[in-house]
Amino acid sequence: MTNIHSAMRAVLFDGKLRFVTDYPVPKVLPGWAQIRVQKAGICKTDMEIIKGYMEFKGILGHEFIGVVEQCDDSKWIGKRVVGEINAACGQCEWCANKMGRHCPNRATLGINNLNGCMADYCILPVANLYEVPKTVPDDRAILIEPLSAACEILEQLKMKGLERAVILGDGRLGILCAWVLSTVLYDVTLVGHHPEKLELAAWRHIKTVVTSADVYAGADIVVDATGSGRGINEAMLLCRPRGIIVLKSTVASQGELNLATAVINELTLLGSRCGQFVDGLRMLELYPDMPVERLITGRYPIEQAVEAFERSAQSDAVKVLLKMRKN
Amino acid sequence: MTNIHSAMRAVLFDGKLRFVTDYPVPKVLPGWAQIRVQKAGICKTDMEIIKGYMEFKGILGHEFIGVVEQCDDSKWIGKRVVGEINAACGQCEWCANKMGRHCPNRATLGINNLNGCMADYCILPVANLYEVPKTVPDDRAILIEPLSAACEILEQLKMKGLERAVILGDGRLGILCAWVLSTVLYDVTLVGHHPEKLELAAWRHIKTVVTSADVYAGADIVVDATGSGRGINEAMLLCRPRGIIVLKSTVASQGELNLATAVINELTLLGSRCGQFVDGLRMLELYPDMPVERLITGRYPIEQAVEAFERSAQSDAVKVLLKMRKN
Repeated sequence: MTNIHSAMRAVLFDGKLRFVTDYPVPKVLPGWAQIRVQKAGICKTDMEIIKGYMEFKGILGHEFIGVVEQCDDSKWIGKRVVGEINAACGQCEWCANKMGRHCPNRATLGINNLNGCMADYCILPVANLYEVPKTVPDDRAILIEPLSAACEILEQLKMKGLERAVILGDGRLGILCAWVLSTVLYDVTLVGHHPEKLELAAWRHIKTVVTSADVYAGADIVVDATGSGRGINEAMLLCRPRGIIVLKSTVASQGELNLATAVINELTLLGSRCGQFVDGLRMLELYPDMPVERLITGRYPIEQAVEAFERSAQSDAVKVLLKMRKN
Repeated sequence: MTNIHSAMRAVLFDGKLRFVTDYPVPKVLPGWAQIRVQKAGICKTDMEIIKGYMEFKGILGHEFIGVVEQCDDSKWIGKRVVGEINAACGQCEWCANKMGRHCPNRATLGINNLNGCMADYCILPVANLYEVPKTVPDDRAILIEPLSAACEILEQLKMKGLERAVILGDGRLGILCAWVLSTVLYDVTLVGHHPEKLELAAWRHIKTVVTSADVYAGADIVVDATGSGRGINEAMLLCRPRGIIVLKSTVASQGELNLATAVINELTLLGSRCGQFVDGLRMLELYPDMPVERLITGRYPIEQAVEAFERSAQSDAVKVLLKMRKN
């Protein structure tokens, strides 16, 4: 398949999740690159979008590895790349402060106002691209987006004075948060309900438990990566007074919440989203033994996207990939 | 009424709000003081308790001014005092760090495991008492507890780099938060729905508006002092990315919430509760023109406590006092 084709395969959400073969190939814009996608990852956010989150309609997907096919700047052509997902305006105060991920005019790949990467082609600003070093194989590079999101915690928080961390949720993001926090804290506990995922999560000195009843309350920092609206309630119970809860879960509907415990215990609830790929890449280079590739549960050809989403929704699944090519 | 009486008047909540005349006078404990209460204030927390908040049953009230009647340390006897509301153990790590208000073993006056001050007598640890300077009249001193709670924001937050504050809620705590923040920030807006309360709130350079639609979004700090479970939704809309929302509302039931905006915009939600009376007293001394006494809506004899609570529930009421004496 080459770029002269005007139609491409894509995984579309238009109220219903569908695989299509006749979606128009996106045209490259000035300052942007057109990328031939090789692999794309299914994320919890994608699962929420098909439940109505962000009211997004279009091509799904924001985790990918691919090769630049078209670009004004010829030095990028043929490069193996990953890309940050927020297409920022580059003009505003936020962009000037390297905070394009909070640019008020941003579009977000496969999430808001920009078609995603679960297709033969996607487009992104050149400024978003990172060439993947040859030493980093595809199956590690594909995890850079969530790994960078985990690294965002270190960017937001001064860790000084913090000792005990508890991470709630043994999904992909929870495991990555535990791994990243274990690089700076000695006392890290991951709470999940799936023994097989907790086994995946074993790295360095991380403790894993299947119920928070086994966690001694009074953590300095609790990360809610349950992907559930209810995780914050458990987090409030495990956190010490004046401790920090990192909010990593975005869900379409959160249900009934009461933040009285946060007020009484003067907790800090810290919303935390995308990170910088430079941090994720650095983490992969600093810790070549961080077993990110073990998080891959399965690989499906793009034609089987609906089955791949079904697999991803199963409780034992961590990271399910879509492949655009057979090799 | 003297202390040799074994029964006293009290405002009791035992599933129903009641005025009683036969409640046992509390006995002073070692290290504690017995205080003859002169005036008590009705707080939003009291209104929530009678809806079920904290599942507290007993004598209500945690805002008072009174005179020490009995105490091991005779130098306190006859002193006109206010008192911090958390009776801490004095033994734990939190107490050692002057954080008795987070002591895990604490009882809280009229809120948790300790009868309150809406009675002829109450008891508190001597360590909680502050003698009220003669220069501070009763009607200013009675506001020290909520004023200190407003000062808590300055204790918790580094204000450096913050410029624009929006306070949601023109209740007593919202107004006090606006006043306290106006001592350190120039751009402070108070949003309330009651023109007569906003008029009370006018002090220094504070702007007042009746709808948040008139507030330019993008505040560095938003204080939710609405006393409503829904205030946080409005706060999330008004706060800039990576801004701070101070949570001051504790309610029995908060309803459906979705914190996705806090995650996406990487907001910090900071629970904030009681402050230190030393800060409230200092504020009163530094700003003798801070019109705290204007917040008093009405005064009722303790016998009319039920009517006083009804008055306090009316939308134009700010601070309603109970008087234990006729003078």
